[in-house]
Amino acid sequence: MITLYTWTTSNGRKIAIMLEELGLQYQIHPVDLSAGEQFAPAFLEVSPNNKIPAIVDEDAEGGPLTLFESGAILTYLADLSGQYLALTGAQRYRTLSWLNWQVGGLGPMLGQLGFFGVRSPDRLPIAIERFREEANRLFGVMDRQLQKHLYLSGDEYTIADIAAYPWTVTATTLMQEYVLPMLETKPSVRAWLERIGQRPAVQRGMVLPKL
Amino acid sequence: MITLYTWTTSNGRKIAIMLEELGLQYQIHPVDLSAGEQFAPAFLEVSPNNKIPAIVDEDAEGGPLTLFESGAILTYLADLSGQYLALTGAQRYRTLSWLNWQVGGLGPMLGQLGFFGVRSPDRLPIAIERFREEANRLFGVMDRQLQKHLYLSGDEYTIADIAAYPWTVTATTLMQEYVLPMLETKPSVRAWLERIGQRPAVQRGMVLPKL
Ligand SMILES: N[C@@H](CCC(=O)N[C@@H](CS)C(=O)NCC(=O)O)C(=O)O
Ligand SMILES: N[C@@H](CCC(=O)N[C@@H](CS)C(=O)NCC(=O)O)C(=O)O
Repeated sequence: MITLYTWTTSNGRKIAIMLEELGLQYQIHPVDLSAGEQFAPAFLEVSPNNKIPAIVDEDAEGGPLTLFESGAILTYLADLSGQYLALTGAQRYRTLSWLNWQVGGLGPMLGQLGFFGVRSPDRLPIAIERFREEANRLFGVMDRQLQKHLYLSGDEYTIADIAAYPWTVTATTLMQEYVLPMLETKPSVRAWLERIGQRPAVQRGMVLPKL
Repeated sequence: MITLYTWTTSNGRKIAIMLEELGLQYQIHPVDLSAGEQFAPAFLEVSPNNKIPAIVDEDAEGGPLTLFESGAILTYLADLSGQYLALTGAQRYRTLSWLNWQVGGLGPMLGQLGFFGVRSPDRLPIAIERFREEANRLFGVMDRQLQKHLYLSGDEYTIADIAAYPWTVTATTLMQEYVLPMLETKPSVRAWLERIGQRPAVQRGMVLPKL
């Protein structure tokens, strides 16, 4: 049995979607970020960086395996199941390029836009503008790629799409004043959002954890 | 032959170090970021996100392979050589947790500290404080891990260390006013910096590209 430590945020939902896609048996352990539960000593044993998501796979080969960081967890689950990431060959590493692009670029930069543009009481124009521009650039990169391919790393749905989808949805909802205008000129991103959003497993994962 | 597209910055040096460690034959193609060469159309064909590092491996199985994102490139080179990342098993994914932690956390957060705290003409106290605190938290996570292990993902040197080293060095030099005081209380990070810095391949990689 796999236990997923998660909350109602984009990085957690990547893993909820993946587990739903795979149909694996799992249970959810909610970590209430608004109550600071991510700093509890018991959670730090699972996730040394005090962030969700993290998993424990009790049935891993060689004994229970604890992992943190969404990119590592997605890669583990893909390798375990042989799905949504080629096991070998060029296509495997192309998908990892786009997965890392989400983890190291789209995620943290949208995170900062959400902080400075929406959550922070001081609306610092210079900081908002920096992250608005970077978000626009990143969605431009995404749109150019999706003009050529149905999915982020080519013509198959992979963990790169699963990583990028919850963040892109959050950008169009919680950060809509900044992001909806940018997406007007990025029709391939909008079509991709619809394509992914039609998957039943994605719809189920996007409302987890149920509180 | 592998071609490395890089510049004198931390993300590029991760790959220079890895190639030096492996003793692979490679050539460097410098991309002058200060001259905006990352936006040249020919470079965008290699690196759609207009950032270094990127590689082209002319001899990859199945034909020339182009990859971007340092985390993906390190994983590819590790798998190609069977070095610095376990090929299977729990330890592989533990290393990927720490690699993703660098790519999604330590890298982008130090990047923002460098921007707001050093490069930006407007020193915004709220932004500086946000990223100073986050950097301090991340180095705290690193120090706790390195109290227990010689290297980031356990007792062996891996691509997680190779990813974190250039950024940590840059933090102690270009961002020294913020970072040196934090490291005073983090002796295990300092010892790790020394341990890694003694490796000849690391010393060679850290001065590439030669201009
Ligand atoms: N790079 C990490 C980021 C994880 C992350 O930022 N998680 C957020 C929620 S989406 C969190 O736990 N925040 C709580 C905190 O920072 O205290 C990943 O991809 O897993
Ligand atoms: N997540 C990327 C980050 C790459 C990155 O930020 N590269 C910087 C240099 S260290 C760059 O090319 N900057 C040029 C630009 O943004 O225009 C990776 O790990 O490879």
